[in-house]
Amino acid sequence: MSRNSFGHVFRFTTWGESHGPALGAVVDGCPPGLTLGEADIQPFLDARRPGQSRFTTQRQEPDHVRILSGVFEGRTTGTPISLMIENVDQRSKDYSDVARAYRPGHADYAYDAKYGFRDYRGGGRSSARETAARVAAGAVARLVIPEVAILGYVSAIGGDAIDPAAFDPAEIARNPFFCPDPAAAVRWEGLVDGARKAGSSLGAVVECVATGVPAGWGAPLYGKLDAELAYAMMGINAVKGVEIGDGFAAAANTGEGNADPMRPNPDRSSNEGLPIFTANHAGGVAGAFRPGNRWWCAWRSSRRHRS
Amino acid sequence: MSRNSFGHVFRFTTWGESHGPALGAVVDGCPPGLTLGEADIQPFLDARRPGQSRFTTQRQEPDHVRILSGVFEGRTTGTPISLMIENVDQRSKDYSDVARAYRPGHADYAYDAKYGFRDYRGGGRSSARETAARVAAGAVARLVIPEVAILGYVSAIGGDAIDPAAFDPAEIARNPFFCPDPAAAVRWEGLVDGARKAGSSLGAVVECVATGVPAGWGAPLYGKLDAELAYAMMGINAVKGVEIGDGFAAAANTGEGNADPMRPNPDRSSNEGLPIFTANHAGGVAGAFRPGNRWWCAWRSSRRHRS
Amino acid sequence: MSRNSFGHVFRFTTWGESHGPALGAVVDGCPPGLTLGEADIQPFLDARRPGQSRFTTQRQEPDHVRILSGVFEGRTTGTPISLMIENVDQRSKDYSDVARAYRPGHADYAYDAKYGFRDYRGGGRSSARETAARVAAGAVARLVIPEVAILGYVSAIGGDAIDPAAFDPAEIARNPFFCPDPAAAVRWEGLVDGARKAGSSLGAVVECVATGVPAGWGAPLYGKLDAELAYAMMGINAVKGVEIGDGFAAAANTGEGNADPMRPNPDRSSNEGLPIFTANHAGGVAGAFRPGNRWWCAWRSSRRHRS
Amino acid sequence: MSRNSFGHVFRFTTWGESHGPALGAVVDGCPPGLTLGEADIQPFLDARRPGQSRFTTQRQEPDHVRILSGVFEGRTTGTPISLMIENVDQRSKDYSDVARAYRPGHADYAYDAKYGFRDYRGGGRSSARETAARVAAGAVARLVIPEVAILGYVSAIGGDAIDPAAFDPAEIARNPFFCPDPAAAVRWEGLVDGARKAGSSLGAVVECVATGVPAGWGAPLYGKLDAELAYAMMGINAVKGVEIGDGFAAAANTGEGNADPMRPNPDRSSNEGLPIFTANHAGGVAGAFRPGNRWWCAWRSSRRHRS
Repeated sequence: MSRNSFGHVFRFTTWGESHGPALGAVVDGCPPGLTLGEADIQPFLDARRPGQSRFTTQRQEPDHVRILSGVFEGRTTGTPISLMIENVDQRSKDYSDVARAYRPGHADYAYDAKYGFRDYRGGGRSSARETAARVAAGAVARLVIPEVAILGYVSAIGGDAIDPAAFDPAEIARNPFFCPDPAAAVRWEGLVDGARKAGSSLGAVVECVATGVPAGWGAPLYGKLDAELAYAMMGINAVKGVEIGDGFAAAANTGEGNADPMRPNPDRSSNEGLPIFTANHAGGVAGAFRPGNRWWCAWRSSRRHRS
Repeated sequence: MSRNSFGHVFRFTTWGESHGPALGAVVDGCPPGLTLGEADIQPFLDARRPGQSRFTTQRQEPDHVRILSGVFEGRTTGTPISLMIENVDQRSKDYSDVARAYRPGHADYAYDAKYGFRDYRGGGRSSARETAARVAAGAVARLVIPEVAILGYVSAIGGDAIDPAAFDPAEIARNPFFCPDPAAAVRWEGLVDGARKAGSSLGAVVECVATGVPAGWGAPLYGKLDAELAYAMMGINAVKGVEIGDGFAAAANTGEGNADPMRPNPDRSSNEGLPIFTANHAGGVAGAFRPGNRWWCAWRSSRRHRS
Repeated sequence: MSRNSFGHVFRFTTWGESHGPALGAVVDGCPPGLTLGEADIQPFLDARRPGQSRFTTQRQEPDHVRILSGVFEGRTTGTPISLMIENVDQRSKDYSDVARAYRPGHADYAYDAKYGFRDYRGGGRSSARETAARVAAGAVARLVIPEVAILGYVSAIGGDAIDPAAFDPAEIARNPFFCPDPAAAVRWEGLVDGARKAGSSLGAVVECVATGVPAGWGAPLYGKLDAELAYAMMGINAVKGVEIGDGFAAAANTGEGNADPMRPNPDRSSNEGLPIFTANHAGGVAGAFRPGNRWWCAWRSSRRHRS
Repeated sequence: MSRNSFGHVFRFTTWGESHGPALGAVVDGCPPGLTLGEADIQPFLDARRPGQSRFTTQRQEPDHVRILSGVFEGRTTGTPISLMIENVDQRSKDYSDVARAYRPGHADYAYDAKYGFRDYRGGGRSSARETAARVAAGAVARLVIPEVAILGYVSAIGGDAIDPAAFDPAEIARNPFFCPDPAAAVRWEGLVDGARKAGSSLGAVVECVATGVPAGWGAPLYGKLDAELAYAMMGINAVKGVEIGDGFAAAANTGEGNADPMRPNPDRSSNEGLPIFTANHAGGVAGAFRPGNRWWCAWRSSRRHRS
């Protein structure tokens, strides 16, 4: 089954292995007339780029993106957009051990079980390097929905969580952990250094907040916004849990505790007639759709770090 | 976008509202030659059927399934299988209040925001009654993969969890809560009765365990087994979280703590040459595929009960 | 592979066999708020209904359609629309000969080759009776695009074609052959009677003309309007050829003979600024899209009648 | 809608414009373990390559294909295969006339009508150069079904058809027209030269014959082998007609004239128990599936040449 794609009307397909000549994405269904250049994509790849601190993989990759199709005179034409990132640092590491033995917590065994054959260099297709292609495609997707702002950050590492009261979005870009709580960022430095020196690694929780999502997006059942987000997050290597809004805490609550009350909006002119929601336990996705543009849709994913 | 379907090669599409004449599913892609009759599906609908205890909705529905196509002389023919369940108890309840006001924690507002129009009787398409069609389609799906056994149960209600040490699968069918821990079932009776009398309701956690899943099922990325399961669970009304294996606990663990070690299997004849996994933090889904048929793939979902 | 569906955003899936209890379609992705009742669908089924003349199958079926979901207070709700047509005349014909022998020109052998098992009663799923479900779904589709008018008729039977000069759309409903040329209809009566008495049958050509199709519909490549139409027509039993516009005659023509010249439209107000096309060899589909709303898109299919 | 893809389990997506830096295809769902190198693809691109005779476009392109992913140590790994062909001859032709005026018989107007914006250089995405990406993906597809042999050739140009009695497959590679009839090839030389000198062009008919197709391939309805082939052919620029087997000639025939009789196969050992078909009017696709591996499935397409 062909499954390296995400999306429906706007749809991208990624390709590439850790140690092949390149990796990339084909974005099909992008609306025409959007201003798009490599400079719109590169900052997201730069933020993701490895080798920028001692806390990530030390592989050195410029991760320069090239747009090979679908853009003419700086604007999208409605035809498929081909994005390519060349692999530069295909270090001549000896992978003979990986070729022979299955690393626990990795996909080595599973690939052999499924395909009977695998590209073992750096994990091949199962390398987290594949997410570079998602980042590039995602940068295009953002241009399609400029009314939506998406903020992502790490909210916990190794069980040590941020203090919500100290949340400052401006901090996210100021530390190597994408941490919105400066005190937590300092603690994590010690935590991750300790794990690194012990030859270990740590799990983490990533949170995303989308604001400005118009009411009514998503399908009512099956392809609900919750379901599409969960599918997207769980389709990434090592993600083992997804929560929307209160997530599992909802299971320990009552019906009325979980419900997000509405009251009529007295100022109809400035709010498009939307009701005012006085809570947001559902993460902005109740009955499948986001109930208004004043609340956020948040999803959390649990990432299991690899040793 | 057409989104009331689930699956790829084996694919079902459901239809029906709470108070329409019927609801059902069309299963396309079912292999030919399988023995299938209404008696293979009915027990699952009977287990799901409302009105059997004071703890569920009091709607009385026989939920008799009819097979309208795709079966000839007791066997599937490879053509689409149409399943229909007639609605009998469309009580002449007065829905004028629901027609006028949006119930918090329900899809009322979202349907109007998306479609500008809704069938308000019993929640229409957003009624949990839609899951009857999934149950019927799922009963057919089980016949396609007889090597896989799937066990589902409730593991917590309102924050009160079962004791894993008391887990007894035989208990699941003995109480109205599908609870594998008899002591917890007794406690839940009081808990749910209390909520019911207070006009409230409670969240719950459902756990599923699949055994016998062959190594290699699922796609390596995007449509990973984790992702397909998360999509399926999150596509159900009121589900707000999904975990595979250790789930969010993995995020508080180390790389080696999360990894599931393998050792060679000395008895190659009886185990198809599979390695022996000495832990199962990944829920049997590492690197996207299930690593062996001796372990389980477990996923948990958090269900937010509606008031 | 699940393949009993047609369409993308608006998508229907059909089910049912010639001699099962019923057949039907689930229409997913229909926009909300459309006025829809059984009376909008029934006339199309009545026109298709067998047993109305001696020239078609003598099976007697009322072909009453029921809407089982997706419509509330006479309007579509955006949820799946389930359409069901019960089979009434499941004549107790003896099918033991069909069960044993493969009829040439039928799907009997192919079903056994693929599935190893088949419902032989009346051809099972391969019966042309399946098209009743398409007709029902198509009646819904017409409501979604009211600006488009679609006219279908038979243009040739057994090699005897209509005279284009005698074309009168009002004639189509006046004879049992859907023939727009009254003289041809008289000839066909004798032709078909002769074949019928000889225990034979005749091939035919069906032509469809769509007017009012907005410029720009369809995808530029792959899912071109030509390709979607060809897929739809060829997916019907016994269709062996499809032409758009001049079809195969284009292959015997020159580039300039095939090209449809444009000239600027002096009256910009009344024609939405569309150029005026002075020919229509391409059937209104040039470069994948229909070039204007003043021309038609015609496709022809060759139907091979079964003995 | 995302539509630059073809196939289901084996699926490819193409990208690229006539005058962009490159064009290519991503093949997803290719089985693992197939021997694949650029040398398996290049001969098909070489056969298609323009500029090899005075009868085709004079653009000079080496059309070297590069495999960027999905192959390791000369074998496919089951992951997406990215194929890229760089554009070399992006001649500095002046396209200002094409930018301003719509060429009849081309997609210029339609692209503007749909997208409001187009890459006019060489037709952009609507250039027949896009078929290079299909050829590359098709070369991979052939390796997946080695039991099937596919032969394609031109059977008519400008209305001048080959003589079936003179059919010699060895001739196809010996003339610039892929013509299996040497006498016709000579005639076509004059015909095409005349058109070329007159600044004109000619339509053509392409025929394809597939042998070795196992019985049972394809879906019974909708996604029938006829329908998938018609969709594929009609999705190519300028194709306006598709026939399977007798095609439109079937419409002028009787039921028994069209039927392909079967008789039992006395030598069961050597023919897998297949019946012997004594005719092949249906092009090997009766009741949706190919009835045996001894006959061919032929489809014809009418290509309307562009001036």
